[in-house]
Amino acid sequence: MGAAFTQRSSQSDTKYRVERDTFGELQVPANVYWGAQTQRSLQNFDIGGPTERLPPPLIKAFGVLKKAASIVNVGYGLDPKIGDAIGQAADEVISGKLIDHFPLVVFQTGSGTQSNMNTNEVISNRAIEILGGELGSKKPVHPNDHVNMSQSSNDTFPTAMHIAAVTELNASLLPALEGLRDALQAKSEAFANIIKIGRTHLQDATPLTLGQEFSGYVQQISNGIDRVRDVIPRLSLLAQGGTAVGTGLNTKKGFDVKVAAEVSKLSGYEFKTAPNKFEALASHDALVEAHGALNVIACSLMKIANDIRYLGSGPRCGLGELSLPENEPGSSIMPGKVNPTQCEAITMVAAQVIGNQTVVSVAGSQGQFELNVFKPVIIKNVLQSIRLLADGSRSFTQNCVVGIQANEKRISQLLNESLMLATILNSHLGYDNVAKCAKKAHKEGTTLKEATVALGFLTPEEFDEKVRPELMLYPEDA
Amino acid sequence: MGAAFTQRSSQSDTKYRVERDTFGELQVPANVYWGAQTQRSLQNFDIGGPTERLPPPLIKAFGVLKKAASIVNVGYGLDPKIGDAIGQAADEVISGKLIDHFPLVVFQTGSGTQSNMNTNEVISNRAIEILGGELGSKKPVHPNDHVNMSQSSNDTFPTAMHIAAVTELNASLLPALEGLRDALQAKSEAFANIIKIGRTHLQDATPLTLGQEFSGYVQQISNGIDRVRDVIPRLSLLAQGGTAVGTGLNTKKGFDVKVAAEVSKLSGYEFKTAPNKFEALASHDALVEAHGALNVIACSLMKIANDIRYLGSGPRCGLGELSLPENEPGSSIMPGKVNPTQCEAITMVAAQVIGNQTVVSVAGSQGQFELNVFKPVIIKNVLQSIRLLADGSRSFTQNCVVGIQANEKRISQLLNESLMLATILNSHLGYDNVAKCAKKAHKEGTTLKEATVALGFLTPEEFDEKVRPELMLYPEDA
Amino acid sequence: MGAAFTQRSSQSDTKYRVERDTFGELQVPANVYWGAQTQRSLQNFDIGGPTERLPPPLIKAFGVLKKAASIVNVGYGLDPKIGDAIGQAADEVISGKLIDHFPLVVFQTGSGTQSNMNTNEVISNRAIEILGGELGSKKPVHPNDHVNMSQSSNDTFPTAMHIAAVTELNASLLPALEGLRDALQAKSEAFANIIKIGRTHLQDATPLTLGQEFSGYVQQISNGIDRVRDVIPRLSLLAQGGTAVGTGLNTKKGFDVKVAAEVSKLSGYEFKTAPNKFEALASHDALVEAHGALNVIACSLMKIANDIRYLGSGPRCGLGELSLPENEPGSSIMPGKVNPTQCEAITMVAAQVIGNQTVVSVAGSQGQFELNVFKPVIIKNVLQSIRLLADGSRSFTQNCVVGIQANEKRISQLLNESLMLATILNSHLGYDNVAKCAKKAHKEGTTLKEATVALGFLTPEEFDEKVRPELMLYPEDA
Amino acid sequence: MGAAFTQRSSQSDTKYRVERDTFGELQVPANVYWGAQTQRSLQNFDIGGPTERLPPPLIKAFGVLKKAASIVNVGYGLDPKIGDAIGQAADEVISGKLIDHFPLVVFQTGSGTQSNMNTNEVISNRAIEILGGELGSKKPVHPNDHVNMSQSSNDTFPTAMHIAAVTELNASLLPALEGLRDALQAKSEAFANIIKIGRTHLQDATPLTLGQEFSGYVQQISNGIDRVRDVIPRLSLLAQGGTAVGTGLNTKKGFDVKVAAEVSKLSGYEFKTAPNKFEALASHDALVEAHGALNVIACSLMKIANDIRYLGSGPRCGLGELSLPENEPGSSIMPGKVNPTQCEAITMVAAQVIGNQTVVSVAGSQGQFELNVFKPVIIKNVLQSIRLLADGSRSFTQNCVVGIQANEKRISQLLNESLMLATILNSHLGYDNVAKCAKKAHKEGTTLKEATVALGFLTPEEFDEKVRPELMLYPEDA
Repeated sequence: MGAAFTQRSSQSDTKYRVERDTFGELQVPANVYWGAQTQRSLQNFDIGGPTERLPPPLIKAFGVLKKAASIVNVGYGLDPKIGDAIGQAADEVISGKLIDHFPLVVFQTGSGTQSNMNTNEVISNRAIEILGGELGSKKPVHPNDHVNMSQSSNDTFPTAMHIAAVTELNASLLPALEGLRDALQAKSEAFANIIKIGRTHLQDATPLTLGQEFSGYVQQISNGIDRVRDVIPRLSLLAQGGTAVGTGLNTKKGFDVKVAAEVSKLSGYEFKTAPNKFEALASHDALVEAHGALNVIACSLMKIANDIRYLGSGPRCGLGELSLPENEPGSSIMPGKVNPTQCEAITMVAAQVIGNQTVVSVAGSQGQFELNVFKPVIIKNVLQSIRLLADGSRSFTQNCVVGIQANEKRISQLLNESLMLATILNSHLGYDNVAKCAKKAHKEGTTLKEATVALGFLTPEEFDEKVRPELMLYPEDA
Repeated sequence: MGAAFTQRSSQSDTKYRVERDTFGELQVPANVYWGAQTQRSLQNFDIGGPTERLPPPLIKAFGVLKKAASIVNVGYGLDPKIGDAIGQAADEVISGKLIDHFPLVVFQTGSGTQSNMNTNEVISNRAIEILGGELGSKKPVHPNDHVNMSQSSNDTFPTAMHIAAVTELNASLLPALEGLRDALQAKSEAFANIIKIGRTHLQDATPLTLGQEFSGYVQQISNGIDRVRDVIPRLSLLAQGGTAVGTGLNTKKGFDVKVAAEVSKLSGYEFKTAPNKFEALASHDALVEAHGALNVIACSLMKIANDIRYLGSGPRCGLGELSLPENEPGSSIMPGKVNPTQCEAITMVAAQVIGNQTVVSVAGSQGQFELNVFKPVIIKNVLQSIRLLADGSRSFTQNCVVGIQANEKRISQLLNESLMLATILNSHLGYDNVAKCAKKAHKEGTTLKEATVALGFLTPEEFDEKVRPELMLYPEDA
Repeated sequence: MGAAFTQRSSQSDTKYRVERDTFGELQVPANVYWGAQTQRSLQNFDIGGPTERLPPPLIKAFGVLKKAASIVNVGYGLDPKIGDAIGQAADEVISGKLIDHFPLVVFQTGSGTQSNMNTNEVISNRAIEILGGELGSKKPVHPNDHVNMSQSSNDTFPTAMHIAAVTELNASLLPALEGLRDALQAKSEAFANIIKIGRTHLQDATPLTLGQEFSGYVQQISNGIDRVRDVIPRLSLLAQGGTAVGTGLNTKKGFDVKVAAEVSKLSGYEFKTAPNKFEALASHDALVEAHGALNVIACSLMKIANDIRYLGSGPRCGLGELSLPENEPGSSIMPGKVNPTQCEAITMVAAQVIGNQTVVSVAGSQGQFELNVFKPVIIKNVLQSIRLLADGSRSFTQNCVVGIQANEKRISQLLNESLMLATILNSHLGYDNVAKCAKKAHKEGTTLKEATVALGFLTPEEFDEKVRPELMLYPEDA
Repeated sequence: MGAAFTQRSSQSDTKYRVERDTFGELQVPANVYWGAQTQRSLQNFDIGGPTERLPPPLIKAFGVLKKAASIVNVGYGLDPKIGDAIGQAADEVISGKLIDHFPLVVFQTGSGTQSNMNTNEVISNRAIEILGGELGSKKPVHPNDHVNMSQSSNDTFPTAMHIAAVTELNASLLPALEGLRDALQAKSEAFANIIKIGRTHLQDATPLTLGQEFSGYVQQISNGIDRVRDVIPRLSLLAQGGTAVGTGLNTKKGFDVKVAAEVSKLSGYEFKTAPNKFEALASHDALVEAHGALNVIACSLMKIANDIRYLGSGPRCGLGELSLPENEPGSSIMPGKVNPTQCEAITMVAAQVIGNQTVVSVAGSQGQFELNVFKPVIIKNVLQSIRLLADGSRSFTQNCVVGIQANEKRISQLLNESLMLATILNSHLGYDNVAKCAKKAHKEGTTLKEATVALGFLTPEEFDEKVRPELMLYPEDA
């Protein structure tokens, strides 16, 4: 609980300093960089505790943004000494080493104002420290006048949201999906010559190769990668420069374009200023859209992992076509049992992401006039979905996919028992006659060959010549 | 109820003919074109009744597909006389005039098999009729051997899903959104010089023009149009040619590419054959993705319509900045009351679409091996969302947006009472001092000017010179 | 389309009469009972077409309500002749025979005002006709002054919502679920002595009887029945008497209690007046809650139907423990293939209901001040979910569950091949030793017995004596 | 990241001991109580990092369960010395002081097997330590044979889920909701005599008291409390005793009942053994149902908080009827601006919970045969929703509701400007005439009185006598 945190901070041996804001003075622990507004938020929003803190990628994005803004602001007249100190402090935010100084939770002011102020306070105090000043003095680096110069919470927070999302998609999710696609592709190639029974409606169907089956998964993940790439352009438009309501009041002409350029440089990803700042503050359609891509990937993963665990079911009483890697003992009571645990983890990830879509949609639909005040919960869910899909895909790849082996003996046995090879006879015997053969074999428990011969449609030799699974894997030549 | 339908069809004066399938004979009403498999489905799936029938755009798409397939099949050896009759019957399906012959509901076989067969039966019987044959005789046009030639339910149904979705997006949703965007753009321009108070957190904020506020809506809808366009390429890939499990068994090389080309010609939209048919049968990621775009548009519309109804709230006790068109008496008990009913309709549409996203995601995630058997419920929800967004946007545009008027007197009065014009003084007086002025005025119920002068920060003349809303609408010159 | 409807109504040979409301005069088709406000709504809300009309159970509930109100109003001074005519017209609404006179769609005014007025207009015109007056004359039965006497749309619509939901739950869903529970119970009993392999994580586990497996399904549906029953009390509280904002202005003391009593009498279900009318108009928490129960039932059905289709998978290459009824040919290309189509239909129902929950939650959360204006979309989704669950359960029961047969030979074969019977040896040999036996058999493809004996833990005789599946179905005696 | 955790644990100065499971040996940090299976899970499921760990209430519930089981097991023959040591170690788990020894994340094996084993390992090692043994030796307290005696992950994990949910609902959510209800009730009473304009469709409507308006909120929260209470009985049924597949194999008759009794004693809440263990392992319908109640509460809170922030909007350009407590500076750029931040936090909580419902529904629907393997993600979301609703309600109560003040002057001014008082004239002048008065005043900007007099319907004196808001708050006497 936030309460717990505050309490921990207020143990008898904690030392305090005084910080102030427009509401008055407040004691904050002497060893933290945050100031009065952060402290107030900690006390006013004791909701959910440390696990509900705003995620680190957002804090890092704030670091990038504040550094970019300070560089641009020096160009507009900010004292370079102050600008440099801000940049240096921001670098420490970006590096993650100040993460403990960002204690605020998601369920705070809906514009994320206190998290913007948390950043301003931490950076100003750290910059003050760098310049030899006194923490809390706001001199020579003022959190509002300098760190937040030409900015508003209403444009910085959505800017940081986009920077964080774009960065995590590029740096975390895309490589993880590429790894999964490559691992599936390698399996698809390795399994290219293993002919197996197809299954539609869970019922035996015409054959395909195991490699073809896996090629469908490759296509899904490959499309998922494209889907992520396709949402990045609109996500790369930044609200910065809109200030409080989108007009850009209290900022300078060109500030928006320059900040976007600087952010691009610092982050290594291309950002542009949003063409309409009113939209950029009052809606988060780009994040709802981006989560839509994550949602599709979740659906793809649910399908793939479900297939793999069913194909790996057994060892004796399931489908048993695949062997999955044994990573841990499967049961505390049943010895020798090994479970498709990586499939279970990734399908739980999928369920979480599908539900997060609902959160993001609801929150994204609730903008009011010049501002959407569901910002923290939107970015929390988007970043959680990205992280879980990325980590989950990596874990699934390394601990499951790469180790999958085909049980060729079992696959072959099932294929040969099947009745569905009958389909190839349609063009020879006609649909209705073939149906008779298959039904007869099914009812009497015989093979398709026996039934077909018994019904007088083909001789055994004719059957063997015509019914060859390897002829059933592709369209006929025209 | 399907039951009701069946009953209606079986009144004492109904005449019957006999149709048969591999299960045996069955009586169907003499005056319908459908056959045994459709009739069986009607009897086996009495779920939801007529309002749950598969939507007309899907049936029309089946018409397009069957015509395209027959043209291609003639190239592969189908008797042109049969091909022509199929094409002629398919044209009648496309025209909508045979819609009553498609009685099947969504909640049937999950591959839509019976709806594919329904199409095959209707087209074959109508083609038989055209060629002077006897309904139900399957001669000279057999539903399976000719109408379904080189096809399977498993590839035709998803093909029809994509054709229907692409067609409705292009023909219905995009024009409706363009109309809405244009109407909002016209208002944005008409309101370009009306300066109003901004609102963030529902609290008075710095000013903007009403035109700027509407420009945010224009941007949202404009992005929505782009979002729809961006999902069309993956939606335009067709499963046709995969047949039962994706291998293309029982079809010919090149059939897939030729069908896609023919569908493009017939529909007027560009389609291509899917690069991987296994993915195209077993997943519906492209439709989950497409619905993701619809979901964003729903969120946009919820935001815009909420703003408009709050800005139009009153007449005496609300915000009252806008006057919405009076379309109907608003209350059965309160005379003179006029309600933002178009906003209510479109926000209900938005709620429906946001929920449909959950349906499509759940259903889309549940593919099994070579087939996803939630096809009908996926396409039903996608087409419902498209239809509701299109109709709703048109209704909202025509019956609300184009008639919105600005209450300039009220807007001006609110602007001048506001305290938030203070923000412009930040650069003159510093943040903390400005806060003192605004707080004093707020506490004492005076104007900002009175407070600022009373605190000695500015003379009245200085105040008037500096605090001018028209200077607060843009960034300062650099 | 509503447009289509209007057009159909305005063909050249249609005759018209003039109706009027506070907005002025309007032509309506001469052969319909609706009046000006209905006609306006038809023209203003051309959204979604006939399939989006408000569902019949809601219209019937309006009939019940209007009859109840007229009876109570006679007690408060309404001319009994008028009251009787209203009651007689309302009976025709209840019977369903006037359903074509209720053409309005869901996506209209969010309070359902026009549907309340549609009811008032139809009943007043029909009552006028009964009393020999002229349609549209509002004499001697006025739609507002008499049919809507002491009422407002704001209290009638939510009252009708609750009446409709309670009625459909009782009359449709509960019997359908009871039928399903009984059918599952019968199977559970019939399968009581069939011992089969259990499956956890899709992996072979310790045995249970097929009857025990089905008993879990029975419990789920049985709980579902209880869940429906448990939401009925709060659903049975009626908003009637709150009038426009909840205060009961323009109605009489006691009206609310008396209407609830009369509705109880007419409907056969017990209703009470809501203890707080402000809550009853401004929130629809009771319907969100009720849909929560439907959502659980959807989850139960998804689980049960998934199990059954997997247990019935095959015929040769699946689990094959169950045979499902063959209701129709399964494939247009693969002869002899029979699919678990009823499972597919009911799981599609489940997906729809899970998504409808999102619709209802979003819409239910959006009340504003004295009114929630998402009423039509809420009740539409609730009634759709009830209908689909009821119809779907009935279809699943009759066309699948009652016909399920156990493949005892296959079940027995799988059981005996399993390694998981080892678990019973834990208390004899210890967990770690038993794990060794099971792993050895698994690796070497032998039976558990062979491995156990080979490792020297037991003699063959000891093994047979100890490892008996029939001893593994219950806890040991203490 | 889990990675980070592992890394932290494996710094150069970390000492290790060896633990083993059926897979072999493994090094674990010397200073932790967990063993080999926990360590394996840490390495195999590096998904989401520390914020995705299973929540503390679940770990505590495991402590309660393991203590209860050990007490019962002593009754069945477990060495009391071992039983006591288990109980003592379990007490430390319950107290929370061993929480750092439970490092596993949600996205692991879907049965939560490793978390059951984590508990077994921590308790056995701690018990070994208490008894003077060597960590990792499994002597004299074996994690499986003693701590997990007569149990399986498949029954302990769902048992712990129910214990945790029931405990948190009772100990955390119910008191928080009661506090909120009481605070709203106090406001409702304090505001009982403040007459204000009602608003329906956001439009001015007939009056009510501010106390009546708040009474609707009281009813919603009061119903919410009942909803929570109503889901507790089915949640209080425990799976314990079902062991691996529900049959109770390897446990003793009566074990299930006795454990439930012991858990009741230890927890202070009444639990019973589940009547059907197959349902209890394979479905989580009771948790889906319970979350349904949380979902309704989220909808209620969204409505209430939205109302309060709109009623508090301003200070000059909104509705301005309420003053909300000023808890922090509202804007980093606009001085004097105070935002409804508590409303924003609680509505974000609502959005999160509405989305969590989707997660829980999807996950709850996906049971397979004898087990649902989405257990961790289900309980994670249920416990998160409980926590957020509880903390959020407490914060909203203390930091917003108790400090709400009515702006009586503003409320009165709006009331008197309204036209909707006209409604009271319906019974005097008839609906249509009253509509004329209201419309005239609206069009001409005059008061209702002026219009009514000008139209000759009433004299000024008659108007004043009849149009009195205090007469509009209740039904008339009959």
